[in-house]
Amino acid sequence: MNREIPYKIYLEENEMPRQWYNVRADMKNKPAPILNPATLKPITVEELSPIFCTELAKQELDETTPYFDIPQEILDFYRMYRPAPLVRAYCLEKKLGTPAHIYYKFEGNNTSGSHKLNSAIAQAYYAKQQGLKGVTTETGAGQWGTALSMACSYFDLDCQVYMVKVSYEQKPFRREVMRTYGANVTPSPSMNTNIGRKINAEFPGTTGSLGCAISEAVEAATTQEGYRYVLGSVLSQVLVHQTVIGLETKTALDKYGIKADTIIGCAGGGSNLGGLISPFAGEMLRGEANYDIIAVEPASCPSLTRGRYAYDFCDTGKICPLAKMYTLGSGFIPSANHAGGLRYHGMSSIVSQLYDDGIISARSVEQTEVFKAAQYFARVEGILPAPESSHAIKVAIDEALKCKETGEAKNIVFGLTGTGYFDMYAYQKYNDGEMSDYIPTDAEIEKSLANLPRI
Amino acid sequence: MNREIPYKIYLEENEMPRQWYNVRADMKNKPAPILNPATLKPITVEELSPIFCTELAKQELDETTPYFDIPQEILDFYRMYRPAPLVRAYCLEKKLGTPAHIYYKFEGNNTSGSHKLNSAIAQAYYAKQQGLKGVTTETGAGQWGTALSMACSYFDLDCQVYMVKVSYEQKPFRREVMRTYGANVTPSPSMNTNIGRKINAEFPGTTGSLGCAISEAVEAATTQEGYRYVLGSVLSQVLVHQTVIGLETKTALDKYGIKADTIIGCAGGGSNLGGLISPFAGEMLRGEANYDIIAVEPASCPSLTRGRYAYDFCDTGKICPLAKMYTLGSGFIPSANHAGGLRYHGMSSIVSQLYDDGIISARSVEQTEVFKAAQYFARVEGILPAPESSHAIKVAIDEALKCKETGEAKNIVFGLTGTGYFDMYAYQKYNDGEMSDYIPTDAEIEKSLANLPRI
Repeated sequence: MNREIPYKIYLEENEMPRQWYNVRADMKNKPAPILNPATLKPITVEELSPIFCTELAKQELDETTPYFDIPQEILDFYRMYRPAPLVRAYCLEKKLGTPAHIYYKFEGNNTSGSHKLNSAIAQAYYAKQQGLKGVTTETGAGQWGTALSMACSYFDLDCQVYMVKVSYEQKPFRREVMRTYGANVTPSPSMNTNIGRKINAEFPGTTGSLGCAISEAVEAATTQEGYRYVLGSVLSQVLVHQTVIGLETKTALDKYGIKADTIIGCAGGGSNLGGLISPFAGEMLRGEANYDIIAVEPASCPSLTRGRYAYDFCDTGKICPLAKMYTLGSGFIPSANHAGGLRYHGMSSIVSQLYDDGIISARSVEQTEVFKAAQYFARVEGILPAPESSHAIKVAIDEALKCKETGEAKNIVFGLTGTGYFDMYAYQKYNDGEMSDYIPTDAEIEKSLANLPRI
Repeated sequence: MNREIPYKIYLEENEMPRQWYNVRADMKNKPAPILNPATLKPITVEELSPIFCTELAKQELDETTPYFDIPQEILDFYRMYRPAPLVRAYCLEKKLGTPAHIYYKFEGNNTSGSHKLNSAIAQAYYAKQQGLKGVTTETGAGQWGTALSMACSYFDLDCQVYMVKVSYEQKPFRREVMRTYGANVTPSPSMNTNIGRKINAEFPGTTGSLGCAISEAVEAATTQEGYRYVLGSVLSQVLVHQTVIGLETKTALDKYGIKADTIIGCAGGGSNLGGLISPFAGEMLRGEANYDIIAVEPASCPSLTRGRYAYDFCDTGKICPLAKMYTLGSGFIPSANHAGGLRYHGMSSIVSQLYDDGIISARSVEQTEVFKAAQYFARVEGILPAPESSHAIKVAIDEALKCKETGEAKNIVFGLTGTGYFDMYAYQKYNDGEMSDYIPTDAEIEKSLANLPRI
């Protein structure tokens, strides 16, 4: 083992990023503008402001400013759980017998258990700065809701979380973490909102969906004085906040003179992936370096690898702005056996454009293979990974095994976005041999895409 | 805020301890010898060897060697999840408005969620070195079983965990983490062992106890070729392994020129507390320094503050060696409303002797106060603590508030042994206002102590 590179690279506090990076500034082909659903014209900060905090609306639409200063209060909070370590996976390399050097950026060492906190604290901060009383959001599996609860608790903001009913009932522990942080957690569809009451009337006994929870959260934000809606992925503002991941990674690699060859991240809405890869993609866009960047998505929800690059609704309720993105259609829902997150029908408009321009590639993997990789990694590297993160692990192992065949000592870097402590139902299924795969047919995807808006 | 001391002090790899410290070498009054239950004479390494790995039996009885080298394989494993950060609780200080400086050593950043892994990996290593096939153990809440499963998986050892039946059923997620690491988890009492069958016959439908699970694990170890029994606390060997906590803490404090005034740890079996305080207690024993060391225990299981210093059985089955310790009697079981760990009837013989000699003091706290402190800490410092660890938080806050009254800028250091992600049932009770306290009466304790062995 090369003792010169430690098992874990922790940056010093003064090496931590003080700005987020906005990769759009370096993109020649900008992401297509998001559209006002009422006018189908590019939306303005003013039009976004009833839903989003004004500062966040500005960040959402800013395609030219390359760096945003991170406010001091957010830097202070980051210092409580960051820097995240860049880990050299010595044990994994040895077990695989690969000449490759494997590194992973581990974002799971905080109570929310994932990278989501990086944007939650930023969004809560701007809400507080604007003098708001609170924020509303939706959560599915619960990572985002947990992160936002923590952030709101820190700034004494009210936090209203609409949690998909089936998760609310099946994941009582996630719910209790949020309650411990003082959040109001409501199973969705609820009787609190018009849309919730309507859906409950139309579909009695429904266990809810992410799309419905989004619609309830947006309605709750726009009908209460002093509230705004916040979202944990997909949006460009979120991706920008998540660049703290990639910036720390790049600084750590540079500090030890390591040049990454392959960079791998899991992709759901795209914000963690975009945050990890932004600084590297920026170098490629500026012609300064080249990397093999791979987005990994579930075969059961393959927006990049099998979706269409088109304008679509961001929510099933069709009340949010429209974005041009790789999408499976806003009505697409992964099959019931899909475990964990990465279930959004579309992909961040920034990631979509980078993919369309060939800056990044994409690969889809089946979930039994993902859990196999997760268990292998847990046993060798001692961290029980989130199902989402394990998509990246699967491909990192595949790439390391290719190096074993070719003898190449590539530097493989992947994002380990979080831990799986609240995903033990899924692990239990895997442990019991009861996990299965489902790949949507072409006909199913075509059917869902037939409902794209005609723009 | 004083920017010179970072939020988190991470040692460099080359600053990490390469030896464990055996505080017994510096104790003038040694802990009383542990006794063979058959002969009531001090037990020998040979007599311990059928139950424990030989090298661990040696560590158990060694009162004179001040330092044990940490084998390289264990150092390598430690580097995967250590050093643990020493965190300056800037946010907590600010929220409390105290002039005190508060530091905590956080041991929760690994998948077992606690400090238990520090000893689990050592015990698994020595078992592997001895050429054993596997180890057996018991687990209550599941932290120890999880840690041991991880350690055994790393060394390809079979791991048989007897899990108290009520926990097995109520904590399925802990069980699944162990299974993910390849452990065999059996609800106790089981039909695998004589003692299990006997208890099941005598008490049909029993949900088990830690004492019964210990007896089953010991029987399983001694009746299978190539197996030994391992234990996660109480024993001196475990306390010695846990000194990695205190040694890292001391190095980190020294690095920044910080002199601790008060050192606080939670106390169940005493190994984490002993591991944290050993290097500091050693300085006191050698007359080099003075500290205010406080052991915090639950009011519902108050072995130090209300127990008797006497020889007692270490297990309810009375098959393990006897130890002189502060004890409530081996039949003592905390009331049913007690949540989390810290439920052992006795205290590490090393900690007991240090307490008897006045090197450390002890304090007991009620669990509703503990959860109040836990929630407060979670919201301010962003870490959801284990119920056990929160005993230390409660007293650290109390001490910091005293400093607020007196105006003293004391340096308060406490051990944050783990996270509460698998304790959300208890948090839910607290969140719902359904948590209660129970302090055993003098009569109850006297009744339990009446059954102490006459030695």
